[in-house]
Amino acid sequence: MTVKIDTVMQTRCFGGTQGVYRHDSAATRCGMRFAVYLPPQARQSRVPVLYWLSGLTCTEENFIIKSGAQRKAAEWGIAIITPDTSPRGLNLPGENESYDFGAGAGFYLDATQAPWSGHYNMYTYITDELFSLAAAHFPIDSSRAGIFGHSMGGHGALTIAVKNPGQYHSVSAFAPICSAMRCPWGIKALGGYLGQHQEAWKEYDAATLIESRGWKNSPILIDQGTEDTYLHTQLQPQFLQEVCARAGVELELRMQDGYDHSYYFIASFMDDHLKFHAKYLMSK
Amino acid sequence: MTVKIDTVMQTRCFGGTQGVYRHDSAATRCGMRFAVYLPPQARQSRVPVLYWLSGLTCTEENFIIKSGAQRKAAEWGIAIITPDTSPRGLNLPGENESYDFGAGAGFYLDATQAPWSGHYNMYTYITDELFSLAAAHFPIDSSRAGIFGHSMGGHGALTIAVKNPGQYHSVSAFAPICSAMRCPWGIKALGGYLGQHQEAWKEYDAATLIESRGWKNSPILIDQGTEDTYLHTQLQPQFLQEVCARAGVELELRMQDGYDHSYYFIASFMDDHLKFHAKYLMSK
Repeated sequence: MTVKIDTVMQTRCFGGTQGVYRHDSAATRCGMRFAVYLPPQARQSRVPVLYWLSGLTCTEENFIIKSGAQRKAAEWGIAIITPDTSPRGLNLPGENESYDFGAGAGFYLDATQAPWSGHYNMYTYITDELFSLAAAHFPIDSSRAGIFGHSMGGHGALTIAVKNPGQYHSVSAFAPICSAMRCPWGIKALGGYLGQHQEAWKEYDAATLIESRGWKNSPILIDQGTEDTYLHTQLQPQFLQEVCARAGVELELRMQDGYDHSYYFIASFMDDHLKFHAKYLMSK
Repeated sequence: MTVKIDTVMQTRCFGGTQGVYRHDSAATRCGMRFAVYLPPQARQSRVPVLYWLSGLTCTEENFIIKSGAQRKAAEWGIAIITPDTSPRGLNLPGENESYDFGAGAGFYLDATQAPWSGHYNMYTYITDELFSLAAAHFPIDSSRAGIFGHSMGGHGALTIAVKNPGQYHSVSAFAPICSAMRCPWGIKALGGYLGQHQEAWKEYDAATLIESRGWKNSPILIDQGTEDTYLHTQLQPQFLQEVCARAGVELELRMQDGYDHSYYFIASFMDDHLKFHAKYLMSK
């Protein structure tokens, strides 16, 4: 099946190409945008690929204008693919009423509850549809893929990696939600998208999944600012520390003094994360 | 006279501090915002300072979220101050009607024509008021100052440097307007702010000023993308080449293959510009 992809924007950046694309998604049954950075090396051969999952309220744009990631991606020859954070423009009841649910807040799961089911399937979109589509349309080597993200997207990266260890070979996060089941953002999202049976929530809870399934592909690298407004109420890295210790998963949790939840924090440590992923993806 | 400065935002970034501030300006007779990046070295001693002048439609925010400049500024110990591009919120007739005149388009000059005069005095604001205020309130060494900018702001940086060689010791630009008098953006702005007597325009035209006054403090470093939509119609670097050759001013004009007018272009060559300025400011 040939999927039509429209180019929204394409521009030279650090010798490579930053693009934004749009396609009709089967998983979400609406138009979806995603961004792709291709380093200069991609003109010669297929390159390893990193998926970036953004946080609440973000689109595919925040990362590509704010993270500064293209510089080292160009140097080390890594593609970076940045999906949107949810379906858009469906006009479902309640879709645009809050910043932490509905549009901009897909939580990287497959919804089972009306009216979200059938559209809010970001888990399938990321792990299946976009993964295949990107491999077919861009000069990337999907056998060397890693995943990382921020906040809601850091939680998404952790859950998606742990559930698909054959597909993603390295994982890291900036200020991730560490257990969606145990924070207000997550409880609202899991309840709304999956209903009130908490058994279903465990399939999309990072701490629970790490404990039950483990993770051996790479250590888990986490940066977390000490002045992050959401540190104690939403993100709660102690949940990750506990389950990694119990499950024998190697966690490098770096508390970064004085940093907040913003892209100023993300940009400050982006090079470290790219270096971390490059180590695992380049050695494959 | 003590000026009150309000902190709009302050956050840790690459070990230093990115802030946005607001004050009541005497030069523009309205509230003005500006951004300051202080590198970690500023906690120990006063650091050299670079002023960044933005292009049409920008505020103080574009540079600080998109340029990626903080990384090398932190490494090399340089402060970067980013003013807004015009007065705001005065509700002058026509102020908000076009992207290239009025709000967001101050052109770094002192207006003489009603209703702009008395407010649209960005030349005095940058060279006098903000320069003094920054020296008084932040740990910067104003005897080691440079200036750079983009598009309208690149033109502003060139004119301001050339007219104040005792104050700015290095100058560079990304895709600058090279002669405001000879491009549609500039003709509209100079006519609107200064009236139709072209003698007055020469005081704010980069090519004219470089030819009449020269510039010996540093070479002039210019990066210009070959795929920039505005290259032939508005920016016209050949005017700069001509006057620099005639006036004996050293110009390094680098045509960058495939790049456009965006911050993706700016970010790609930001490190080179910071290195250029560091060389001149650090040796003072």
